[in-house]
Amino acid sequence: MDIKTYKKEADYSYTLGAFPTFELIDAMPGCVEEIIVHSSFTDRDRLEEKAGRIPVTENNKLISKLSDKENVYVIGVFKKFSCALDPDRRHIVLVNPGNMGNLGTIIRTACGFGYYDLAVIEPAADVFNPKTVRASMGSLFRIRHEKFAGFNEYAARYCGFSADTVKAGNDELKRRLYPFMLDGSCSLRDADMPGNDRFSLIFGNEATGLPSEFSGYGQPVRIEQTEFVDSLNLTIAAGIGMYVFAREK
Amino acid sequence: MDIKTYKKEADYSYTLGAFPTFELIDAMPGCVEEIIVHSSFTDRDRLEEKAGRIPVTENNKLISKLSDKENVYVIGVFKKFSCALDPDRRHIVLVNPGNMGNLGTIIRTACGFGYYDLAVIEPAADVFNPKTVRASMGSLFRIRHEKFAGFNEYAARYCGFSADTVKAGNDELKRRLYPFMLDGSCSLRDADMPGNDRFSLIFGNEATGLPSEFSGYGQPVRIEQTEFVDSLNLTIAAGIGMYVFAREK
Repeated sequence: MDIKTYKKEADYSYTLGAFPTFELIDAMPGCVEEIIVHSSFTDRDRLEEKAGRIPVTENNKLISKLSDKENVYVIGVFKKFSCALDPDRRHIVLVNPGNMGNLGTIIRTACGFGYYDLAVIEPAADVFNPKTVRASMGSLFRIRHEKFAGFNEYAARYCGFSADTVKAGNDELKRRLYPFMLDGSCSLRDADMPGNDRFSLIFGNEATGLPSEFSGYGQPVRIEQTEFVDSLNLTIAAGIGMYVFAREK
Repeated sequence: MDIKTYKKEADYSYTLGAFPTFELIDAMPGCVEEIIVHSSFTDRDRLEEKAGRIPVTENNKLISKLSDKENVYVIGVFKKFSCALDPDRRHIVLVNPGNMGNLGTIIRTACGFGYYDLAVIEPAADVFNPKTVRASMGSLFRIRHEKFAGFNEYAARYCGFSADTVKAGNDELKRRLYPFMLDGSCSLRDADMPGNDRFSLIFGNEATGLPSEFSGYGQPVRIEQTEFVDSLNLTIAAGIGMYVFAREK
């Protein structure tokens, strides 16, 4: 296989580093095309045992081409995959996330708190970019994720939204929606916890947050903060939201 | 003043960008030496009004030298400062934080949740590095921070530790300590909330966490997570901890 530097249009991507590569083999062995190792990689025996029938090839030149200055000794090449979300599970919905590091970090946190379904509303950072995969520490391979051209497409498919639903409280929907907004009408400490797993936590773009129309959906939530900061970092707001709602597992 | 690219040893540092520069002028006007603007900066009138007697100088060459590729139009040069912590307030204690971006992000989050006292246990990333200042979005100027050569120095000064105190539960100390550890004996959800503001949340290094002896101090806390992740990102663990303890303001 002739492997090139990552392109969004390609049908494959790769992990950079041993940890995400082991995660890849563990969670999605069927997607792995091949594994490239550097001649100075010290854990090759364990890798080959885990890899089973997946080919493991030594190729220092390719590693240096793909890894872009970082200290990388293993790369796992995999076919891109996609998967419908589970309609009965808790979802994380990211509306126009702009930064690959943040996207990966949120995936890692989601996986840590038992959120295994991620909706990404485009335009958005690329989940398969090796930088995202790396920031996720391989957690990307543990979750389902699905892309949508707009929030309405997601909402129509999973939440029982229709074109008439301009404003919809949680009681009118198939799943409870919690958009996180700086001016959300309900403090996170007072939010109505969902009684089951059919709920979605919705977070906006790093710079712009969620568009104002989200204040009409479900129960808009704000994380109380002092006057001294503009807003919390997106990954931290998402982490706090996931932690609080994970409570009602 | 002859301003050079940042050095840890220098007695001054600088903000990069308008937002942290306005924060600097607002919160610590007495520390500002001068403000440098780029000729294409569009908000100079407001800046000069805020700056008052602080000199504002146009110098494109200096901006390009200090700003290192980023889009920066304003730089605020300030004297480094230090300040003892308030012994009666809640503290954040960072033991050997390694990354300037993380350190700045934690400062920003702390400021957002009303933690205005930060202890940094060395070796540690430099709080005054312009990268830290930038990641803090200028929140550094809103808090007190103090460096310590080791945790014992902090503990002796603020917590009533003595050389004999090898293990000390919260009841034996002047302030309640909550070390955050992957194997902490108490889940964060079950932690005893402090009845007053004399408590410290303690977080370790990004890669190594807290040394094991911290399990003998105060009430070691773990943030429950699934088996699928190695650990949470430090800034997110700290954000969740601060949010939960901010509850008992």
